[in-house]
Amino acid sequence: MRFASDNTSGVCPEVLAAIAEESARYGPAYGDDRRSAELVEKLSEVFERPVDVYPVATGTAANSLSLAALNPPWGGVICHQEAHVAVDELAAPSAIGGGLTLLPLAGDHGKLTPEVVDEAFVRRENGVHTVPITGLSITQETETGTCYRVDELAALAEVATRRGLRIHMDGARFANAVVATGASPADLTWRRGVDLLSFGATKGGALAAEAIVSFDHSLDEVIQRHRKRFGHLLSKQRLAAAQILGWVSDGVWLRHATHANRLAARLGAGLDASGMALSGPVEANMAFVRMTDDQARALREAGASFYTQVLDPGLAEARFVTSWSSSEAEVDELIRAAGQIIAA
Amino acid sequence: MRFASDNTSGVCPEVLAAIAEESARYGPAYGDDRRSAELVEKLSEVFERPVDVYPVATGTAANSLSLAALNPPWGGVICHQEAHVAVDELAAPSAIGGGLTLLPLAGDHGKLTPEVVDEAFVRRENGVHTVPITGLSITQETETGTCYRVDELAALAEVATRRGLRIHMDGARFANAVVATGASPADLTWRRGVDLLSFGATKGGALAAEAIVSFDHSLDEVIQRHRKRFGHLLSKQRLAAAQILGWVSDGVWLRHATHANRLAARLGAGLDASGMALSGPVEANMAFVRMTDDQARALREAGASFYTQVLDPGLAEARFVTSWSSSEAEVDELIRAAGQIIAA
Amino acid sequence: MRFASDNTSGVCPEVLAAIAEESARYGPAYGDDRRSAELVEKLSEVFERPVDVYPVATGTAANSLSLAALNPPWGGVICHQEAHVAVDELAAPSAIGGGLTLLPLAGDHGKLTPEVVDEAFVRRENGVHTVPITGLSITQETETGTCYRVDELAALAEVATRRGLRIHMDGARFANAVVATGASPADLTWRRGVDLLSFGATKGGALAAEAIVSFDHSLDEVIQRHRKRFGHLLSKQRLAAAQILGWVSDGVWLRHATHANRLAARLGAGLDASGMALSGPVEANMAFVRMTDDQARALREAGASFYTQVLDPGLAEARFVTSWSSSEAEVDELIRAAGQIIAA
Amino acid sequence: MRFASDNTSGVCPEVLAAIAEESARYGPAYGDDRRSAELVEKLSEVFERPVDVYPVATGTAANSLSLAALNPPWGGVICHQEAHVAVDELAAPSAIGGGLTLLPLAGDHGKLTPEVVDEAFVRRENGVHTVPITGLSITQETETGTCYRVDELAALAEVATRRGLRIHMDGARFANAVVATGASPADLTWRRGVDLLSFGATKGGALAAEAIVSFDHSLDEVIQRHRKRFGHLLSKQRLAAAQILGWVSDGVWLRHATHANRLAARLGAGLDASGMALSGPVEANMAFVRMTDDQARALREAGASFYTQVLDPGLAEARFVTSWSSSEAEVDELIRAAGQIIAA
Repeated sequence: MRFASDNTSGVCPEVLAAIAEESARYGPAYGDDRRSAELVEKLSEVFERPVDVYPVATGTAANSLSLAALNPPWGGVICHQEAHVAVDELAAPSAIGGGLTLLPLAGDHGKLTPEVVDEAFVRRENGVHTVPITGLSITQETETGTCYRVDELAALAEVATRRGLRIHMDGARFANAVVATGASPADLTWRRGVDLLSFGATKGGALAAEAIVSFDHSLDEVIQRHRKRFGHLLSKQRLAAAQILGWVSDGVWLRHATHANRLAARLGAGLDASGMALSGPVEANMAFVRMTDDQARALREAGASFYTQVLDPGLAEARFVTSWSSSEAEVDELIRAAGQIIAA
Repeated sequence: MRFASDNTSGVCPEVLAAIAEESARYGPAYGDDRRSAELVEKLSEVFERPVDVYPVATGTAANSLSLAALNPPWGGVICHQEAHVAVDELAAPSAIGGGLTLLPLAGDHGKLTPEVVDEAFVRRENGVHTVPITGLSITQETETGTCYRVDELAALAEVATRRGLRIHMDGARFANAVVATGASPADLTWRRGVDLLSFGATKGGALAAEAIVSFDHSLDEVIQRHRKRFGHLLSKQRLAAAQILGWVSDGVWLRHATHANRLAARLGAGLDASGMALSGPVEANMAFVRMTDDQARALREAGASFYTQVLDPGLAEARFVTSWSSSEAEVDELIRAAGQIIAA
Repeated sequence: MRFASDNTSGVCPEVLAAIAEESARYGPAYGDDRRSAELVEKLSEVFERPVDVYPVATGTAANSLSLAALNPPWGGVICHQEAHVAVDELAAPSAIGGGLTLLPLAGDHGKLTPEVVDEAFVRRENGVHTVPITGLSITQETETGTCYRVDELAALAEVATRRGLRIHMDGARFANAVVATGASPADLTWRRGVDLLSFGATKGGALAAEAIVSFDHSLDEVIQRHRKRFGHLLSKQRLAAAQILGWVSDGVWLRHATHANRLAARLGAGLDASGMALSGPVEANMAFVRMTDDQARALREAGASFYTQVLDPGLAEARFVTSWSSSEAEVDELIRAAGQIIAA
Repeated sequence: MRFASDNTSGVCPEVLAAIAEESARYGPAYGDDRRSAELVEKLSEVFERPVDVYPVATGTAANSLSLAALNPPWGGVICHQEAHVAVDELAAPSAIGGGLTLLPLAGDHGKLTPEVVDEAFVRRENGVHTVPITGLSITQETETGTCYRVDELAALAEVATRRGLRIHMDGARFANAVVATGASPADLTWRRGVDLLSFGATKGGALAAEAIVSFDHSLDEVIQRHRKRFGHLLSKQRLAAAQILGWVSDGVWLRHATHANRLAARLGAGLDASGMALSGPVEANMAFVRMTDDQARALREAGASFYTQVLDPGLAEARFVTSWSSSEAEVDELIRAAGQIIAA
């Protein structure tokens, strides 16, 4: 019953096969290879337009390099106050962005709204002394398991355009959001003003493969240069490209995401039914559930792993994350264990 | 006949197996896992003392994070003028080191000598205006295919101690140097004053796995913090650890390096005998050979890939690199082709 | 009626005389001169212990260099959300601090409290992913014109010690706080745990002279190196030292501060009596007064300059700052004008 | 006999008067003042075209901010190996330029030539791994006391244009070069491709006043932002502007430079005649003279201050710098002392 995070899963069989297959070949280093070229083609097809693709090994790299490419070092980037970039990356956007400032804002269900973004401009001094707001970073699927709908993204794009903000999307769980919203990758990104996407494959089944997908070719040099000078250009990039190709081809990524989302829904509904209430809707591959500290302890003793956050003394919010490698059996085992704890 | 670089090889079977095996398991993210702990144990055994190990995905990351940990941002690091850190990393040590300065020096056969290091201090102003020399970065195996002997390292350690310099070793091809020198990993590193080693597995057969091996535990926080904030902490670190474990266990790394070194020697001797003269001794897995531009062109037309550097108009120095995946057959094919070109 | 800021004043006669006197001499550059040495002696006397002194030309430099010296680049510094470092310095602490994060917190009257500082640690994740809180920056006199009492500083020092935080004090208006609190410079700084003080003379009557006053000699190299490498070491430092010496000697600084504080009190009381209510107590050289937008406009038309901040539609908070060069006459003229506006 | 450096001089009477005059006024802070506007007008007149002017307090700031504005953080800047930016600024261009690399080159008499610049491109790898050469920094008057002629600058501009390099000029002693070459400020700068000039007044007689003079208005935001975020925007900027205005107005700067250049020529000729040979031509306000260590010691004992550099064991090159405050009397006293030492 491993629900701590989707990054506790291993490499999915399709990616393993792609690695093995590519390993049998030689290939030029640093991205001048066939797989890297094929990846550009493949993602251009997925996103229904020509894109540039920059593989890297971590999500923090994809996010920070994107923010550094879109914003001047004196700029400020609005993000949700629970966003990974703001909370879990040890100020990497500032380290890589040359002193870039994050401007975390509140918002229900882990989402930013146009109103919240607009309000950040109110009473803000102008002039050279104040960090100008230059960018917006949106997380899709959000940290609280929700997904921005296409119309919500359109509304954010509108305010971004009006305010002159560049848009980055942290898509560490983008596959889950595509499945959850039913919208096309294009409709969730560049058609709604997204300039750069951190396209995450690691949580979805890759070994260590993320990619900056760029919808603005004029950013090519700055991304390439920053990627290299912060140590993120992989020598055997063809093996990172192979991972993503193996994962995206034949709809593998969406199949895995569908599986994970389905199990999260089952898990959430099951716990809710057992008497541990859901904190919010389960839209993708995360379920947030309220339980007492005693219940959390008992669940862990029963063999479940998951994170909790203190809500009130004695009361916690537990996060359950499913992945390509989660099984219906372990979800049902968790639900059973929860039922017994409630009943006891 | 792929001799452009050892990083054009794929993943060796032993590492592939280790990835597949580890993929069947769940495991905590970000290094709190069993494989990461085993890697520390294993490398402590290899280096005959307790070490800290920080896996990363690229050699540039390992090098730059090491230099940033050992030197203040205002410091200067002596390195050979052909060193990878100086030539091929787009000033990453400065980007990650907060403005760190590299001080590249000349030296025969890609090696620094105590005399050269000492001379860098002569006529150097003191005081707050001048970049103080604070570190030394040694490449083992060097960029020109030579290896520092233990006594050469001891002499460098002596001047470093006398001058108060911290020592980093870029060991992207450390395995080849261990085999070439016949010295133990310990004798090539901490017993000769090395503080941090970039321990390279990628060129030797891994997918994307390098590690900073630290012989100074007091550097733990700064390395961990820099690694995270520059985006180099892998979420599925256990799969990077598994790669290195699969590569180091049962002597795989030294077996592959022995193979590569042997083929480079064969290749060098063969070309030399055919009439294309070696530029210097073949000590590890690289052979440098002088040939005319016409000969280089003919060799490439025959199907060989390798890099050349202009020496004089019409004359080039060609670099041939062997790896775990090179075969005797392709070496012999190259020698044959060279013989025919010379004969023609 | 110039009350926009104390930095709109010129150079006070005592500092002018000191500049002229020092200009008649030659002297070594970059701080190896007699005036710089005398300044160390003088401030050691003022602070009743040996101190190190690092003159710079701007308050932003003094603040940012101090924060960079006290905190690692991955650290976080708690400050008040209205603090100059957080609001008016374009993220200079991050630019100079290598990516340092500011953690602005709310607090009445521009002051931080131990409770607010302690609460910042609650629910804060540990581990390598989260910015660790490493420092505290206190502004004395605060941005809202109040001054920390000695017992308030002691309480902050207690929590800082308990939490392992280094303390910086932004003393751009330190002289005004010394006069306002009646406490000694020592009691307001190192005896209450302050490690580094930005000692401001510019607002108090100098041309461009601030100094980092250090109570921790072990920080000497890092401050000197950062000062130089960010371009803040003055070649004619003896003329900056002379400015501060001319200002501190014979109690000039406290006399000017007493004058400014007295006029601010007079101004505040006068406006309050005229019907424009004070927002808070006038403790040093700033008075904050509530007035309608119409009243503010009328006051400006009458010749007064000052800043306003919107409180509610139609309602503003006006800030009046006095300096060494303010005169009783212009204060009284302002009060008269306010009376007429109210009466109209 | 103070000839160590022109920055050991005090503030010249004209600048002192300007400071005193401006101190009698109030004025907006941070550059929104009349003097700052007048300075733009005045320097636009001096340079015969509209310019932007950014006062700062140090030459290191002017140089580093200029290089950061003209070059990306991954760029490389060619400069002479004896240039102040390369030797005396503790890697400030890299600290402020986000990791910028300096590429110091040799050249006779402290000067770069088109040949030397062109040769830096030969055998330089392209691609993302190598620091691209993006800028050129020229020092005028050079560190060895020579001055680029207009045709030499034109030749450098030609290669810069051909190679796509932006040009910065370090003009810490620009006034001396204007006088020495007899060329107009315009002919020495923008008419020869210079984009940004560090216009130095401090060595020439100001207290602490340098200015970035920009011939490219599109750089306005980046210069302003970098200046602020590295702590170089002066609150009482009007007093820095007043210094430069006082110095430039009525030809004061050129009069002082003429005086200094004349004395250096006299000093050089005098020592040469006395038997201490000049190392090179005396073109502006520095004379370099060869003498034995014993002679240098004797000159110092006679009361002269100056810097020496070791040439050979027992032989030194002494640098004598004159300034606005040097007197014919002290020059003649030095020559006399030299004569006696030679005769002894």
